[in-house]
Amino acid sequence: MEDSQLPSPAGTQLLVDIRGAEIVSSQSEDPEVYLPHHEEMISHIAIDIGGSLAKVVYFTQKAKPNGILGPKSLAQQRPVSHSPSASSRAFHSHLRRRSSTSRIPSGGRLNFTKFETSDLSSLITYIETLISSSAQANRVPVDVMKRNVKIMATGGGAHKFYEELHDRLGIEVRREEEMECLVLGLSFVTEIPNEVFWYSDELIQAVSHPQERALSAVNLPSTPGSSSSPLPILDMPVNDPLPGLSSSQYTSESSSSTSTLAPPLPTTANDDLPRPSPNPPQYSIRFDSAPGPAQFPCLLVNIGSGVSIVKIDDYGKFERISGTSLGGGTLWGLLSLLTGATSFDDMLALADKGDNSSVDMLVGDIYGQDYQKIGLKSSTIASSFGKVFRKGEGHGDGPSDEAAEERRRKNFKAEDISRSLLYAISNNIGQIAYMNAEKHNLDRIYFGGGFIRGHAATISTLSYAIRFWSKGTKRALFLRHEGYLGGIGAWLKNIGAGAVTPEGEKAEEEVRRGRS
Amino acid sequence: MEDSQLPSPAGTQLLVDIRGAEIVSSQSEDPEVYLPHHEEMISHIAIDIGGSLAKVVYFTQKAKPNGILGPKSLAQQRPVSHSPSASSRAFHSHLRRRSSTSRIPSGGRLNFTKFETSDLSSLITYIETLISSSAQANRVPVDVMKRNVKIMATGGGAHKFYEELHDRLGIEVRREEEMECLVLGLSFVTEIPNEVFWYSDELIQAVSHPQERALSAVNLPSTPGSSSSPLPILDMPVNDPLPGLSSSQYTSESSSSTSTLAPPLPTTANDDLPRPSPNPPQYSIRFDSAPGPAQFPCLLVNIGSGVSIVKIDDYGKFERISGTSLGGGTLWGLLSLLTGATSFDDMLALADKGDNSSVDMLVGDIYGQDYQKIGLKSSTIASSFGKVFRKGEGHGDGPSDEAAEERRRKNFKAEDISRSLLYAISNNIGQIAYMNAEKHNLDRIYFGGGFIRGHAATISTLSYAIRFWSKGTKRALFLRHEGYLGGIGAWLKNIGAGAVTPEGEKAEEEVRRGRS
Repeated sequence: MEDSQLPSPAGTQLLVDIRGAEIVSSQSEDPEVYLPHHEEMISHIAIDIGGSLAKVVYFTQKAKPNGILGPKSLAQQRPVSHSPSASSRAFHSHLRRRSSTSRIPSGGRLNFTKFETSDLSSLITYIETLISSSAQANRVPVDVMKRNVKIMATGGGAHKFYEELHDRLGIEVRREEEMECLVLGLSFVTEIPNEVFWYSDELIQAVSHPQERALSAVNLPSTPGSSSSPLPILDMPVNDPLPGLSSSQYTSESSSSTSTLAPPLPTTANDDLPRPSPNPPQYSIRFDSAPGPAQFPCLLVNIGSGVSIVKIDDYGKFERISGTSLGGGTLWGLLSLLTGATSFDDMLALADKGDNSSVDMLVGDIYGQDYQKIGLKSSTIASSFGKVFRKGEGHGDGPSDEAAEERRRKNFKAEDISRSLLYAISNNIGQIAYMNAEKHNLDRIYFGGGFIRGHAATISTLSYAIRFWSKGTKRALFLRHEGYLGGIGAWLKNIGAGAVTPEGEKAEEEVRRGRS
Repeated sequence: MEDSQLPSPAGTQLLVDIRGAEIVSSQSEDPEVYLPHHEEMISHIAIDIGGSLAKVVYFTQKAKPNGILGPKSLAQQRPVSHSPSASSRAFHSHLRRRSSTSRIPSGGRLNFTKFETSDLSSLITYIETLISSSAQANRVPVDVMKRNVKIMATGGGAHKFYEELHDRLGIEVRREEEMECLVLGLSFVTEIPNEVFWYSDELIQAVSHPQERALSAVNLPSTPGSSSSPLPILDMPVNDPLPGLSSSQYTSESSSSTSTLAPPLPTTANDDLPRPSPNPPQYSIRFDSAPGPAQFPCLLVNIGSGVSIVKIDDYGKFERISGTSLGGGTLWGLLSLLTGATSFDDMLALADKGDNSSVDMLVGDIYGQDYQKIGLKSSTIASSFGKVFRKGEGHGDGPSDEAAEERRRKNFKAEDISRSLLYAISNNIGQIAYMNAEKHNLDRIYFGGGFIRGHAATISTLSYAIRFWSKGTKRALFLRHEGYLGGIGAWLKNIGAGAVTPEGEKAEEEVRRGRS
């Protein structure tokens, strides 16, 4: 892959040199981001601990043996000078300087993994192993390594588990504000080629209204479970020339062969893609293959356990303007009560097989036809789960017949319930997101957060809701690293300013001494 | 009760003389409306058939023996001349004429009852009995009575069940547009004294945040089930002077003793009120005891199985601007799956006893504290049902342990689930309603529809949502006949223009002949 195939260096590059940045496939669930021109030696681990999931982001250098954490910690004590809450002007001038001083194409990659928040011990074990293996590779004692590594923590758990993280890891833990990190992470990822994607109108229609336009296998396979990840493997061998390019799922043509105006890609039999990819087999997902600088203003709808809606005016200028408690936690929680499913992916698989019209009351169920006067089609959902409750069925006037009631309830299939609830939650978020976008006159609506999981029905429902309510004037945009915005933002918070600070020098010296 | 105690005649009175109108208690679930000055002989029955409930509204005259349906049908063939879709100016001039020509204080009452839509046969039986008993009382054959009675039908079921209603009843069925009827019904009821009510800020706080301010028995008892109503009893004896005034729940002072600025009423031990009443025992519900003409513009949020949001600019000028499928049907449907409850009231009773914090993930559960930076208190619900799903609990890496999973699910109490879902649905509707009110700059937000059922937690949650999102600038308004707006509107659609039409004369003559 040559530079000429890649987008030219963007005018703004945040704090990291992202020229030639690329999403790479690997064995891990979430694709890594390869940064061929980013040459800092970074020794911090970012974690974003939400209500349900704890996300981990860290950088490993290609130049380092085994790609382990580098020991040279820059600007450990001085993250303030390049805070994104500084004015946009200052931010940009800083970035340009950065961009012009980092020319050494050493590179490395951003790694992503996640755990259940309720399983904090696994997270801590993962970090401990990462540190001890890095110490070994750097030939320094673990305690020296620990003094040169820090945790950049965000999300609510950064506060709730602050003491526990600090005490159990024995590492400095720095807390960063959640919304600030989300916004910073979004600004970063939108500049990565093929990170941002959206559904074509035909795909929205095909997935949202399968009964109206039968398409086989339009569902994107959902991602495999994450908390069962093996212990960390720092999987960048020294001689791996361009990690990920050997993957059959991603070729060197991919960046140039997709464009925002490309026609639907040819159909293949391969339905084994772990996430939306720029080479999708059966449906026209469109990727932003040559993004320019992040575009503001925009709306970020971050769907985790709950939902935060953030208006972003410019780099570092944002406001959380709304939110809803009906989010991922609601879907997973209710479905775990209503179905036998015990994992996200089981639930999504159920939803893919379901027919919501057996539990939802459609306009046609009430009217027997369209409600033309106000433009509601007979297939429109009038009441989610509106067909389920029938007073007077399954019980008499006397004491209720529990067994009969139980039988009646069991008549509703887990598949149909799952699809109905997925629709209900996604539609509702889309509607509230649209109203906020409309209020603030924002056309770009990014959906982030761990709820989406690259799942076709979720994405198409959110997309459809935005298309429907905006009468086609606004578009829902999605991200391949949707769940890691906060983690990436926290990681970026500790990137140095391009010069070695006294603290950095001291740390580097300490490692040298430890190694000798 | 003298006229001096009552509000002076309003400038606008719709099509019915509502001077001295009064809500009266009776044995029936929904309080009747006494109209002392309305003297028309009406022989039509309005039904509003929604997705879940079919509502019935009809007028019975005090002057008629046993208060049966009067046989003199006015303007049977000419409902158009006073359609509310006419301009406001024409509407008002028509009303003034009406008001000045109807001075005979015969009066009568509006009756309300409802059935499950799934139990259409009970509705048909009710109407058949109403007609046959009225025929008997009027001493005419049933077939003559049937020719002089008509059904004014609205809601989706007016279309879906049109043939069935017509064929089985053998009566003319006229269909009226749903939104038009809702709006007309709202315009009418808001002029009835003590119909409109709202919660004081203290009451919202007390019911929405019981843990922060413990109050005993703040819950309004919900209404009893309705479809088990006995067959119709036209319960206005000839000598009943002022129906309902003998009730201990409603005294002749009530209209004047409550005002929009009244302090909280004294506490009594009586908690047996069937609905919010102007004499509430333990909490400060405020009633609009002296309403003027209906105030426009306003927003109507009608919560039935689904939710319709209608902007009303003036009499007959309105637009359905939004809606959501997360409505009453969603709550009842999900709770019937999740709990053993088999009736609305069982579910509301469960919700009253529940603690949502055992299933909802609060801000404090994620942060361990408030999230002060963006103004979220630790008690704020971050994720509805966010505490329920815990991946990795109740099952191992192998095949899931269904029994353990079942046990885990059963740990969540039906009471807590019910309260959480009631909060989630009500909050969400409140949020979407607020955003629409804000968009169109509307301060008066009426909540109608069968979902509310006079239930304290529902009303306080909706009220709180409007207060919260509007920062106290907007108020949620409620209605004692909340579920009957469409039915009342359909009833009003057939009220004559004050003059006997040729068709009415003919019908009257036919009855006279049949009687002799």
